[in-house]
Amino acid sequence: MPSIVLLGTGNVATHLFHAFQKAKDVEIAQVYGRRKKGLKHFQALARITNDTSQILDADIYILAISDTSITEVSQSLRSKKGLVVHTSGSVALDAIATARRGVFYPLQTFTKGKKVDFSEVPLCIEARNPDDFILLKTLGTSISKKVHQISSLQRKKVHLSAVLVNNFTNHLFHLAQEICVENNIPFDLLHPLISETVHKIRHLPPVDAQTGPARRQDAETMQLHLEQFENPLHKKIYQLLSESIKTTYEKEL
Amino acid sequence: MPSIVLLGTGNVATHLFHAFQKAKDVEIAQVYGRRKKGLKHFQALARITNDTSQILDADIYILAISDTSITEVSQSLRSKKGLVVHTSGSVALDAIATARRGVFYPLQTFTKGKKVDFSEVPLCIEARNPDDFILLKTLGTSISKKVHQISSLQRKKVHLSAVLVNNFTNHLFHLAQEICVENNIPFDLLHPLISETVHKIRHLPPVDAQTGPARRQDAETMQLHLEQFENPLHKKIYQLLSESIKTTYEKEL
Repeated sequence: MPSIVLLGTGNVATHLFHAFQKAKDVEIAQVYGRRKKGLKHFQALARITNDTSQILDADIYILAISDTSITEVSQSLRSKKGLVVHTSGSVALDAIATARRGVFYPLQTFTKGKKVDFSEVPLCIEARNPDDFILLKTLGTSISKKVHQISSLQRKKVHLSAVLVNNFTNHLFHLAQEICVENNIPFDLLHPLISETVHKIRHLPPVDAQTGPARRQDAETMQLHLEQFENPLHKKIYQLLSESIKTTYEKEL
Repeated sequence: MPSIVLLGTGNVATHLFHAFQKAKDVEIAQVYGRRKKGLKHFQALARITNDTSQILDADIYILAISDTSITEVSQSLRSKKGLVVHTSGSVALDAIATARRGVFYPLQTFTKGKKVDFSEVPLCIEARNPDDFILLKTLGTSISKKVHQISSLQRKKVHLSAVLVNNFTNHLFHLAQEICVENNIPFDLLHPLISETVHKIRHLPPVDAQTGPARRQDAETMQLHLEQFENPLHKKIYQLLSESIKTTYEKEL
């Protein structure tokens, strides 16, 4: 049964903590947080500390902290024998200052207060040496059915893809909601369409699921749409995404 | 029990046909299609014709045809007493040539061969006169729980929003899939993230659900992402969407 110290008290740390709490084969030895305020949530549930010199020994140290703090906090673990991993999509494996190092990147968007079924969250893992990889795999399978070996290069690509499908998609939802609000249209009118958009690509590659004026090169409808934008940035986004769709299907002609 | 003639044999027409078939209170009098080939699917299920002079009398004529054919086909219905409606998100009500006219716009993306639960499809309806509106509402509620009165101006906005949340979102999924394929990453690794992105906005406005480097103005991560694009158009899309996210949250500061 691997023991872990969880470093961090934010969104990812909190979701990981509760996932490991439910896991039978993992012992949470301690939670570390820089500020006492952040530790409050964990106080009654685990041993806590806000002093790096008081961090207990464990098999794995999980850095669920901001990207920019990873190197610094890992330096305070230099005397430890355990494996140190971070949970970031974009930070290099070698940002960790200890000899035994790895990555334990949960590919999901976490919202404060909203439960996530961790068994369905893909875990992208990587380790510097094969034994540590096996240890990480054991840790990963204790909370998720989806543990994948992903190299640092692949992780960079996964993270970029995640920005496209999550951050940018969500922003398009926001732009649509703005349009709806301005025109007294209930935004939830769009929910079934959004659900179907996502449901479709479980059965059909997105390239085949594409519809709309840009795909069929319906210049008249696109012009009607462009005229409706007041914000030049939004207009430009419409133009470029339409152009990109157009180019995608030209290639196939 | 209103009787209908369905004009068109494409995706929308086919999905509407099967929805009306199941409805208890609607009689499908006939299906019209320009080409015999398109009518084949309906041959055993309804009366069919490919001759506009043979179109039967009905309470409602539903033009489920391409945007550019609406005016022309509606002209062939000038002698009819019934209500003529089109199913387009972007065409004006007055594109219909008959005196009694309306719109019956199902806000959904339809895929050939993929069943849709029509009871959940929002129907945006509009009619030139109040009695026809009531008739359309009766027709709409026979197949859907979600019938909304949407004006022509609102419908233009709904259609634009639909392009953002469906067409553009799907294209972002496609770009992400391309990145995954190029790097030997299974695309379904992203499915849980995509599902959660959509699930989130049922409880949280998209503006509050936004995460990622652009929202937190993490210039370093954005630079790392930009360097990964080879296609200048995709790079520009990343820049503009990030810029638009940044602007959204600057406003709030």
